[in-house]
Amino acid sequence: MPELRKDPIVGRWVIIATERARRPMPQSAEPLLAPGGYCPFCEGNEDKTPNEIYSFREPDTHADQPGWRVRVVPNKFPALQIEGDLQKKGDGIYDCMNGIGAHEVILECPFHETSMARLPESYIREILWTYHERLADLKMDSRMVYGMIFKNVGAAAGASLEHSHSQLIVTPILPVNVFEEMNGALEFYKYRGRCIYCDIISQELGADKRVIFDSPSFLVIAPYASRFPFETWIIPKQHNSHYENASKSELDELAGVLKTILLKLEIALDNPAYNYMIHTGALNTSQLPHYHWHMEIIPRLTRVAGFEWGTGFYINHVPPEQAALVLRNTEVDTL
Amino acid sequence: MPELRKDPIVGRWVIIATERARRPMPQSAEPLLAPGGYCPFCEGNEDKTPNEIYSFREPDTHADQPGWRVRVVPNKFPALQIEGDLQKKGDGIYDCMNGIGAHEVILECPFHETSMARLPESYIREILWTYHERLADLKMDSRMVYGMIFKNVGAAAGASLEHSHSQLIVTPILPVNVFEEMNGALEFYKYRGRCIYCDIISQELGADKRVIFDSPSFLVIAPYASRFPFETWIIPKQHNSHYENASKSELDELAGVLKTILLKLEIALDNPAYNYMIHTGALNTSQLPHYHWHMEIIPRLTRVAGFEWGTGFYINHVPPEQAALVLRNTEVDTL
Repeated sequence: MPELRKDPIVGRWVIIATERARRPMPQSAEPLLAPGGYCPFCEGNEDKTPNEIYSFREPDTHADQPGWRVRVVPNKFPALQIEGDLQKKGDGIYDCMNGIGAHEVILECPFHETSMARLPESYIREILWTYHERLADLKMDSRMVYGMIFKNVGAAAGASLEHSHSQLIVTPILPVNVFEEMNGALEFYKYRGRCIYCDIISQELGADKRVIFDSPSFLVIAPYASRFPFETWIIPKQHNSHYENASKSELDELAGVLKTILLKLEIALDNPAYNYMIHTGALNTSQLPHYHWHMEIIPRLTRVAGFEWGTGFYINHVPPEQAALVLRNTEVDTL
Repeated sequence: MPELRKDPIVGRWVIIATERARRPMPQSAEPLLAPGGYCPFCEGNEDKTPNEIYSFREPDTHADQPGWRVRVVPNKFPALQIEGDLQKKGDGIYDCMNGIGAHEVILECPFHETSMARLPESYIREILWTYHERLADLKMDSRMVYGMIFKNVGAAAGASLEHSHSQLIVTPILPVNVFEEMNGALEFYKYRGRCIYCDIISQELGADKRVIFDSPSFLVIAPYASRFPFETWIIPKQHNSHYENASKSELDELAGVLKTILLKLEIALDNPAYNYMIHTGALNTSQLPHYHWHMEIIPRLTRVAGFEWGTGFYINHVPPEQAALVLRNTEVDTL
């Protein structure tokens, strides 16, 4: 059973997950296939993963058999485990709890495609709806507090398999970064009476220096205080705190927006390693007036060094205005 | 002039440093020499760096000439610049200031050695005293708020040159990570009336599960909530908030401790990329009862992925008790 431990000084939680030591770790620059050279995420290898939790599949096909288009399975090397009751305990000045939670993998296509951007838009629509369905399902489990959906692409971004996939980790406590973001948004709301993300949308559309592109329902920007070169945020224009409260038609539109920005990044930056994360409201809260769900995409072009680790300051040598200009001018054909 | 920008939601500052785009960035796994294959940090190439600020050198040798053992120069691609007055301004909901500060490089030996652990202990004593002298000097400049001393070793840790060196970046505001650490320590002090680091020393010496080794004045541990496999902290046993308040004899002892732990990490982990950072009190404060300076060493064995970026939670697959056991049993010959 993994263990959650809290740093007694800064309150940062760490998952001590000895199970994951068995996970294949690529040492090379490129992500690997599984040992033996096959891909456990390809159609036909359903027996190489734990039993599926959810899928989009062809009529008259069965769970854990071929015929799926998008498939969700528990992570074989889970950071947190779903079984058991949450138990908290102290050890002198230290606090810990057992590693209850969920760790799922979303297999994004049955064929061996390594780039989400190159998937047909119909697949991306089903992937985004799968995120919605998994969050809505886990919201019913009262032990679960926060669901983080994320994607690691390329070894430099922490991926250990190259087949297009994303992950969902659900934690039994509110993560510190999420708390700080929510709290910052709440402070702004208390002072101004408005959602800060709604204000960002309004200011960015007015200034038009950091807008990469927009669609009827989404704004894609290089954020003002970008930590990383070509950091990109996708923000829904309509105020909504929770991803699982987004409508089917909004998420269908997001599929085209996401495909477009990922293609732009692939072309402009020559297939960079990247992470994306969905920032959304906690599972144990309903609609919030001060928070606003969004996606953050961070290309992993530079290494985080000692200064960043020590201070939390980031050094970014590409101004977001310049990144936005490059990405705005990068032409893609999404048809 | 670099620019400091603040994320309006979480209050995180970012340095937008366009000067650094000209810095050679290694794309390969190993750090590079400068273009042309020479090393700008080796003795004889003093004209390849800006003019020296401080040095330990042989009698009758002159600044910016051979004869030095440790040499401090301004970074050729500075993240922050020393000249000018601090100017703050707003832009709608955003805040920024000009990038006033300091960015220095400490060249740790005149010959081409890539490992600090393999330097003679006498060099390490002079390096640690150099840190002391630079912090004490910059403390006199009222524009300077925080001095972060750090080391990047290996391309995976963000190094762009392999010659043994460390860096000092001085910021005009208190960095968010430093604030959180100080604030956490202050909260503990307000509640318990004791320094939390002093309590950690006492609990770790008692439990003896995470102690790697100790010396009369320093304790070397794998911290309870280690974020990374083989994360290591060096904590002075005597309460002291500021590195620049440490005595010469304490820092002389630290040289042997630092050499020993770096050798242990090199042997146990096969010359890993790593960062170290000195966490110390702010330049604009004097002795604090609640804070305690220390060094943090993080081997860069794994990549930070989307989950960590999104949540601030870290997943560590090596329990610190196991890391401490491995390092305790790694024999080194420091003579």
